[in-house]
Amino acid sequence: MINKLIANIKKTDAPIVVGLDPMMKFVPEYIKAANFAEYGETLLGAAEAVWQYNKGIIDAVCDLIPAVKPQIAMYEQFGIPGMTVFKRTVDYCKEKGLVVIGDVKRGDIGSTAAAYAAGHLGRVQVGSKAYPAFDEDFITVNPYLGSDGVKPFMETCVEEKKGIFVLVKTSNPSSGEFQDRLIDGKPLYQWVGEQVAAWGAECMPAEGGYSYVGAVVGATYPEQGRIMRKVMPKSFILVPGYGAQGGKGADLVDFFNEDGLGAIVNSSRGIIAAYQQEQYSRYGEQNYADASRAAVTAMKEDIASALAKRL
Amino acid sequence: MINKLIANIKKTDAPIVVGLDPMMKFVPEYIKAANFAEYGETLLGAAEAVWQYNKGIIDAVCDLIPAVKPQIAMYEQFGIPGMTVFKRTVDYCKEKGLVVIGDVKRGDIGSTAAAYAAGHLGRVQVGSKAYPAFDEDFITVNPYLGSDGVKPFMETCVEEKKGIFVLVKTSNPSSGEFQDRLIDGKPLYQWVGEQVAAWGAECMPAEGGYSYVGAVVGATYPEQGRIMRKVMPKSFILVPGYGAQGGKGADLVDFFNEDGLGAIVNSSRGIIAAYQQEQYSRYGEQNYADASRAAVTAMKEDIASALAKRL
Repeated sequence: MINKLIANIKKTDAPIVVGLDPMMKFVPEYIKAANFAEYGETLLGAAEAVWQYNKGIIDAVCDLIPAVKPQIAMYEQFGIPGMTVFKRTVDYCKEKGLVVIGDVKRGDIGSTAAAYAAGHLGRVQVGSKAYPAFDEDFITVNPYLGSDGVKPFMETCVEEKKGIFVLVKTSNPSSGEFQDRLIDGKPLYQWVGEQVAAWGAECMPAEGGYSYVGAVVGATYPEQGRIMRKVMPKSFILVPGYGAQGGKGADLVDFFNEDGLGAIVNSSRGIIAAYQQEQYSRYGEQNYADASRAAVTAMKEDIASALAKRL
Repeated sequence: MINKLIANIKKTDAPIVVGLDPMMKFVPEYIKAANFAEYGETLLGAAEAVWQYNKGIIDAVCDLIPAVKPQIAMYEQFGIPGMTVFKRTVDYCKEKGLVVIGDVKRGDIGSTAAAYAAGHLGRVQVGSKAYPAFDEDFITVNPYLGSDGVKPFMETCVEEKKGIFVLVKTSNPSSGEFQDRLIDGKPLYQWVGEQVAAWGAECMPAEGGYSYVGAVVGATYPEQGRIMRKVMPKSFILVPGYGAQGGKGADLVDFFNEDGLGAIVNSSRGIIAAYQQEQYSRYGEQNYADASRAAVTAMKEDIASALAKRL
């Protein structure tokens, strides 16, 4: 799947990922009204509104981008109907040829981690049969529990040729509270990054290139991105925090390797709620998906021009 | 809800929690056969088998225990039918008067953490209405992202009088890989524990006592439990790792405060798969729930006798 991600990046010439994090305040009023009229102001009504909103965005941008990153919390909050729409979104994006990164940030140990790995990346055994449940291509994983919490995901990645992005240095303001603390002169996130490199070395595709084990480093910490790029040369870095959280293309060049690969930059609300920004307000909420397409194009240009200046 | 947990512990005289982590290999063959016959060897068939298995255990032990801890990964791996049975299990346990600790180990930032908090502890707004989704009483939370990742849960805890247990020192063998690393002479888990104490101070019930913010410290690390008990005097400690993972009652006394409270010890497979252990094999799989009841009684006695020796 890492190679499909790379192929999609090359095809679209866009190392970007659209975060499908559909907060209700982003969903156009007309979509909410229609779905509440049909299903009531219920969890089902909310979930179906989210689905219609997502589908509009996916249809509008799928030819421009290699991947999407649905944030499962935004679906999970609506209970079973929300999880159903999460799965529908995963499936629909895969039908459209997109790589799907489930932003699930799961993390547990042993058989529990194996259950998450089966549910999100692999297949679960039921009697004589085996089924995928949510079946994303990649997921994000939390490293706090150590190797016991990561190895079961690695095993599934190797079996299924899928991938994980391990949280290393997150984009939020307080990420340094624990992640930046110095241990023998090096910050915790660097120790985690070194483990990512070691885990990654155990999870290489037969044909070489990039590992099935990637990392998350926030766009809001470009200096840390530069360091971690060197610490984990074979790991793709998933870079959240572009746009709404403050990251800009010029900040991101050092997250990439010399081959122009090795990073994929996420924008969520900057794309999916573009129509609510002054810059794209001319589209109006009826044309929210066109506003998202324009925002994707602008993001692609911002990153391409920053990368071009580096070379 | 912390006060309901304490009341339940006093009522049952048992500071224990049964982990409802239903791996398929624990489910008696006759239950699997019946459900596969009815629903096929499908995700639904597996989930319904899990439900029947859970219900048997809950019915058999609910009068002996204060709380249960369903591990969501074991349900999530079966997709939508699994999540439906997770919710059914939560609801059924609450009907039986049990406190429900959702072992979800979620962790994210800002609006995403708020969505998890709404989905698991609070209510999500849908138009003019607000609904609970999974509606546990407590959940477990991962601290790697720092305060940004914990505060949204704290806000929901205060609003809803619910609670969280933050991962501090987990029970697995490799938990030390990051958690034990020394930062200015103190291990990372202690820094996290000090934050738990600080977060907890902001989340006290009006009547005082124990905080809405608790911690997870593994039974397999009794020395760390003793230290953390003093660092977080107002936090309940959820103690996994008893039984199958190697923890014994005698190891656990220092997790408790002088009032005999402050800790709740989890056992999962040691209870729910008791019938598969030599000690309880006389029950047979048809009477798996009676074996679970016997294992609960033995666990209660083990911990009570260890605590009695301390006094």
